[in-house]
Amino acid sequence: MTKQELITAIRSKKSFLCVGLDTDITKIPDSFLHDADPVFSFNKKIIDSTKDLCVAYKLNSAFYEAQGAKGWESLQKTFSYIPGSHFKIADAKRGDIGNTSRLYARAFFETLNADAVTVAPYMGSDSIKPFLDFKNKWVILLALTSNEGANDFQFQVSGDTEFYKIILEKAKTWASDEQMMFVVGATQPGYFSAVRKIVPDHFLLVPGVGAQGGDLEKVCAAGMNKDVGLLVNNSRQIIYASSGNDFEEAARNEAKKIQEQMQIILEKS
Amino acid sequence: MTKQELITAIRSKKSFLCVGLDTDITKIPDSFLHDADPVFSFNKKIIDSTKDLCVAYKLNSAFYEAQGAKGWESLQKTFSYIPGSHFKIADAKRGDIGNTSRLYARAFFETLNADAVTVAPYMGSDSIKPFLDFKNKWVILLALTSNEGANDFQFQVSGDTEFYKIILEKAKTWASDEQMMFVVGATQPGYFSAVRKIVPDHFLLVPGVGAQGGDLEKVCAAGMNKDVGLLVNNSRQIIYASSGNDFEEAARNEAKKIQEQMQIILEKS
Repeated sequence: MTKQELITAIRSKKSFLCVGLDTDITKIPDSFLHDADPVFSFNKKIIDSTKDLCVAYKLNSAFYEAQGAKGWESLQKTFSYIPGSHFKIADAKRGDIGNTSRLYARAFFETLNADAVTVAPYMGSDSIKPFLDFKNKWVILLALTSNEGANDFQFQVSGDTEFYKIILEKAKTWASDEQMMFVVGATQPGYFSAVRKIVPDHFLLVPGVGAQGGDLEKVCAAGMNKDVGLLVNNSRQIIYASSGNDFEEAARNEAKKIQEQMQIILEKS
Repeated sequence: MTKQELITAIRSKKSFLCVGLDTDITKIPDSFLHDADPVFSFNKKIIDSTKDLCVAYKLNSAFYEAQGAKGWESLQKTFSYIPGSHFKIADAKRGDIGNTSRLYARAFFETLNADAVTVAPYMGSDSIKPFLDFKNKWVILLALTSNEGANDFQFQVSGDTEFYKIILEKAKTWASDEQMMFVVGATQPGYFSAVRKIVPDHFLLVPGVGAQGGDLEKVCAAGMNKDVGLLVNNSRQIIYASSGNDFEEAARNEAKKIQEQMQIILEKS
């Protein structure tokens, strides 16, 4: 998917919501447990009930790998089921030496047909470039993550610059805003302005709204750009809105609530 | 596996070789391609022909994920096939927010029964700690990697200290040398002394000898400690020593050559 296609989807749906399919088999309604592939069956229902309200789906590979090979099947089937109109993110946080990163790129862009994969920056340029060799595919590089451990290394000061800024500065020389996005956690609202000074035009993938405590209004006030430039992810608050048989309706209601907040923000901006 | 068991294995086998099962289906002998699971069949032969010469096997998840769910089956079957006497490393370079890292830990330590998993440091302590909750299991944290991109961020100076040193200093407060190791690439032989000043007692996992150009003698001269303290990995030079029907013998010969070098080094030390 191109940047322009993503912007068009956001404008027409009045939503920059990404639904996180972090599906934990121990948390889905019991009624699914007799299905051949409970996780996939659950994901289908969530996709059906939210797809008009969001522009993207994000699947965190950990939730699938915890089920081994069977989990990878659920992952593949879910990626295939997501409509082509939606931006598909493999939240995998991979990164390895060049020839190995190339295999990860094949796994996520070819086998799973994801539009984007999240990548960890620590191993540097040649761990990231193999992902950039794929046309119309995206790298979403970790910059400022939403967890407490972000404080351990990401704000380390080198010269007079924090480490996450050094990463943003280097990474933007590796790929344009047509091929790279950055993860900036919603739990770091005070840093969006600093991020925007370095990467004014890139899309940011924003986890941490909802269960992790991030605030949508604050994120948008400092993080939005002329093209919206944000994909805000919510996982748990939507997909586990109810553990009963009304889970579809409950998930839809939560997604709708967020989409309506987004619509107001978009109309004001 | 405990640290003491690993040391005992190294002393008795006179080897600190880790064989990297980075098995690419496009590079194994054609005769396997009619098997139900060519990658697993190939891995079995490599394990059978090298197990008396090495103390560890390392499987890089990228090579398996590139084959999707089927690849994960090969990964599971291979982990099951490795003898309990050997240290089993999942080279996955994972790391995510706490609740998600916990799922990765389950995937690698429970589903695959690996002894150790490689973890990327960028997301900090709470991305790493869930792996440390497993008894007799290990985190192998990326410190100095063997690729060129290592120069992009790992040597960034903060205060008067390079970033990889800051990671070593912090990480050694999170877990003892009975539960944590560090990746230090053989392509960085000049830095082993600096690493050893910070973590004298920890095991180091050393990739990059062989195809990537690292030198075993130099690594050992600066990196060995009283317990040996090194696991030196070799993948391509061993497993692809021949693409013909003599691949098993060729793999064994390469492993033997490295083991003999290691024996000489151990006897001199």
